[in-house]
Amino acid sequence: MKLSEIARILHCELHGDGDVEITDVAPVEDAPPGSLTFVVDRRRARELATSRAAAALLPPDAPDVTLPSLRTSEPYAAFVAAVELFHPSPAREPGVHPTAVIAATARIGDGAVIGPHVVIGDRVEIGCRAVLDAHVVVYRDVRIGEAFTAHAGVVVREGVRIGHRVTLHAGAVIGSDGFGFLPLPDGHRKIPQVGGVVIEDDVEIGANTTVDRATLGATVIGHGTKIDNLVMVGHGCRIGPDCLIAAQVGLAGSTTLGARVMLGGQVGSAGHLTVGDGARVAAQSGVHRDVPPRHDYAGYPAVQAREWRRASACMPRLPALFRRMRRVERAVGVGSAEDAPGDEG
Amino acid sequence: MKLSEIARILHCELHGDGDVEITDVAPVEDAPPGSLTFVVDRRRARELATSRAAAALLPPDAPDVTLPSLRTSEPYAAFVAAVELFHPSPAREPGVHPTAVIAATARIGDGAVIGPHVVIGDRVEIGCRAVLDAHVVVYRDVRIGEAFTAHAGVVVREGVRIGHRVTLHAGAVIGSDGFGFLPLPDGHRKIPQVGGVVIEDDVEIGANTTVDRATLGATVIGHGTKIDNLVMVGHGCRIGPDCLIAAQVGLAGSTTLGARVMLGGQVGSAGHLTVGDGARVAAQSGVHRDVPPRHDYAGYPAVQAREWRRASACMPRLPALFRRMRRVERAVGVGSAEDAPGDEG
Amino acid sequence: MKLSEIARILHCELHGDGDVEITDVAPVEDAPPGSLTFVVDRRRARELATSRAAAALLPPDAPDVTLPSLRTSEPYAAFVAAVELFHPSPAREPGVHPTAVIAATARIGDGAVIGPHVVIGDRVEIGCRAVLDAHVVVYRDVRIGEAFTAHAGVVVREGVRIGHRVTLHAGAVIGSDGFGFLPLPDGHRKIPQVGGVVIEDDVEIGANTTVDRATLGATVIGHGTKIDNLVMVGHGCRIGPDCLIAAQVGLAGSTTLGARVMLGGQVGSAGHLTVGDGARVAAQSGVHRDVPPRHDYAGYPAVQAREWRRASACMPRLPALFRRMRRVERAVGVGSAEDAPGDEG
Repeated sequence: MKLSEIARILHCELHGDGDVEITDVAPVEDAPPGSLTFVVDRRRARELATSRAAAALLPPDAPDVTLPSLRTSEPYAAFVAAVELFHPSPAREPGVHPTAVIAATARIGDGAVIGPHVVIGDRVEIGCRAVLDAHVVVYRDVRIGEAFTAHAGVVVREGVRIGHRVTLHAGAVIGSDGFGFLPLPDGHRKIPQVGGVVIEDDVEIGANTTVDRATLGATVIGHGTKIDNLVMVGHGCRIGPDCLIAAQVGLAGSTTLGARVMLGGQVGSAGHLTVGDGARVAAQSGVHRDVPPRHDYAGYPAVQAREWRRASACMPRLPALFRRMRRVERAVGVGSAEDAPGDEG
Repeated sequence: MKLSEIARILHCELHGDGDVEITDVAPVEDAPPGSLTFVVDRRRARELATSRAAAALLPPDAPDVTLPSLRTSEPYAAFVAAVELFHPSPAREPGVHPTAVIAATARIGDGAVIGPHVVIGDRVEIGCRAVLDAHVVVYRDVRIGEAFTAHAGVVVREGVRIGHRVTLHAGAVIGSDGFGFLPLPDGHRKIPQVGGVVIEDDVEIGANTTVDRATLGATVIGHGTKIDNLVMVGHGCRIGPDCLIAAQVGLAGSTTLGARVMLGGQVGSAGHLTVGDGARVAAQSGVHRDVPPRHDYAGYPAVQAREWRRASACMPRLPALFRRMRRVERAVGVGSAEDAPGDEG
Repeated sequence: MKLSEIARILHCELHGDGDVEITDVAPVEDAPPGSLTFVVDRRRARELATSRAAAALLPPDAPDVTLPSLRTSEPYAAFVAAVELFHPSPAREPGVHPTAVIAATARIGDGAVIGPHVVIGDRVEIGCRAVLDAHVVVYRDVRIGEAFTAHAGVVVREGVRIGHRVTLHAGAVIGSDGFGFLPLPDGHRKIPQVGGVVIEDDVEIGANTTVDRATLGATVIGHGTKIDNLVMVGHGCRIGPDCLIAAQVGLAGSTTLGARVMLGGQVGSAGHLTVGDGARVAAQSGVHRDVPPRHDYAGYPAVQAREWRRASACMPRLPALFRRMRRVERAVGVGSAEDAPGDEG
């Protein structure tokens, strides 16, 4: 595709030779000949000098470069559009594979692609243009909106509610029983988990992630929220809209996240607490208390990130601090009987 | 259902109007009109004043409330029984779905529900009243007791032994190979994992959890133990009875847990160590050494929880401690050449 | 099998009675009568005195023991060979189960075992002697080498490349979408994940592990690398050859591991960093920066393991250190207004 054609489709301003032939898109560092690349920060435009790319998407105020360029106020968004242009999703023929087992009482909208060995239970309703890949299992009484995508092996348990344009990646389990047991003298008695799960519009959930159903009421995942792989969402969690939850995060029961919360990988949260709107928690942190809105938290237990960084920077210097303390105590003549033995760290 | 009828079924003492019609059960904070709620701690009975619930389960010594109430020495257990009363598990018609693939040499007890596309291997034995949902795979030579429940997509590898009343949630994998490799000059040689897995009675295992088979001998999960989602049980672990293991816990090979051990979410344990009876380990802790019976541990590496809480409370004050040290050193005239630069934290 | 026969097969030197009948293999501590056990360290040969084993594999320089023994310079490797001798993998009849759904354009090599309900997409190529257990799903355009093993429920997404002798354990997902979203004023826009995954020869990947496809280019897992259960490999990671990655490790996008890297369980790594050849990172550590080759790292954030051990050994003594500081300050007459309240830890 000619660069001038791409400029037209992406609504960019063309600088330089529009007849250059573009064959793919690539980041600067890996760009092969013939590729369109991009630079978001105009100060990094000079990196293009050593790139093999054929052209670049640049912000309007970037300096002139030897490559032909497309100028746009949103180079990254234009790059994403270019990726879609060069890698269109293959159209899939609507239809139901003959090995699928679909209850007579289920209703599936027009244009659905139902793969081999899919199982859909009684009274399930699924909107238009759904794609259910091989081996997806939807239990009874589930309701799902339009443009649903479920990759191979997804399991949606009974009664779950799912909005429009939701994507579930392979192996995700939605609506498994919450982990609730009543300790009795003769062992643990299961607390029935009879609540549900509500997944709002435009949510994406990663591979092998599990979202437990509530004991009573519902576990809720707000619209636009994106969840990575191998995440655990405990029973009764209420996750707000437009959150980003990285891989292997674990949210204990009844955790509440506000809007636009960002959790780094492997973050753990105790239950029955609230992370405020726009708060961010660094990877591997352990959240034991409420996090106020628009704060950055980190550490175990998590505190303000700035505070945590300062404190953890002290850690490697602790052995020396103990030695310094001993020296000072000797100079002052203050004894330290309780701490003396083995004090050199 | 009338409150007086519920009182009769749950063996509670009725205080107030027994003709109140109850339509559901709910926790105090979410109780809709018409619901039965509960309070375990009599000092919290006053919270009922602002609840919309129609009636409450209370301990015998709770003060009088404006709502009708049911008195019982175990309000929480009675509430669980009430949940079951209002949300009975739907009866499922026994039968084998025609798409299931069951080896001729397999034996399955009476009353089984075998879902679509289930696969059961040679010489498998399963007791009465089993429920195997869609896509469950049971490899050859597995033996399973009565009242077994496996949700969609569960995989049970060859030779695994499972007791009575065991529940496996969707995507759980039982009997995958342990992670054992012998480092040789030309790479890692796999150590064959030819041991098994024994799951005793009344065990429940969460969604997408994995339990590896032993190299030799068996990985054992004791009766009554409950394991949450996305947990990893390494090869040769021996887990005692009535343990509670929260989500995303990882137990390295040959970890031994005693009876009634409780592990918080994301706890990791090194292998070849023992956590004693009744010990509890706080979420995200890293267990590197034996934990004595009936102790609470926390931290990384895990120590007594009390000790860890005190130590971690010091963390945020470390930068100030370094400043204080510098001040004292100056006052005393003790040099600190080694630690001087960048010491302000 | 007679011990002398085992000596012949394993190329070991026989000491003592070769007519002893061996019925199984076992580690020293669990060895039942009739078993062959092994000791790697000659100083531990005395433990055999209390073992019930019938014979032992020993290094050549081990002292004489009362049991008959087989001497070899590699007792552990000989033991592994003995395990294989006593527990041969059962031969499986090649063939395609009639419930498998295989695209007309797929090509599968000789000797394949294709289990029930397997699904293989368009233009897939699989080499000789593949074993695909029940419910394995291979999307379109995947290429796989010889001697491939996939356990039940494995999902391989479109376009993935897999080398020879690769094993994927139950529930593993290869090629799921990377987690990439562009924050825009009206929510997160998905960055299409159009790259691939390349898995080289002799790789083994654990149960329910997920390996994401790259945004562009490829996620690579080097030859001979072994990955345990429930691991997350983010998009664009490049893992070198012969690495060992323990359970529940999480690698954020574009992490690079060199050759022979070892990561302990639950390690987390930030993205866009490099762990050098032969480096080892202790369980639960959080890697935030490059790790130089052949270094041992530990902690959160990870530093040199030696340094971390020294620093974390100081942690439990911090409350006492604060008390000591207070005492010294009083002795010197230095005030500490800012830190005074609550300073006793």
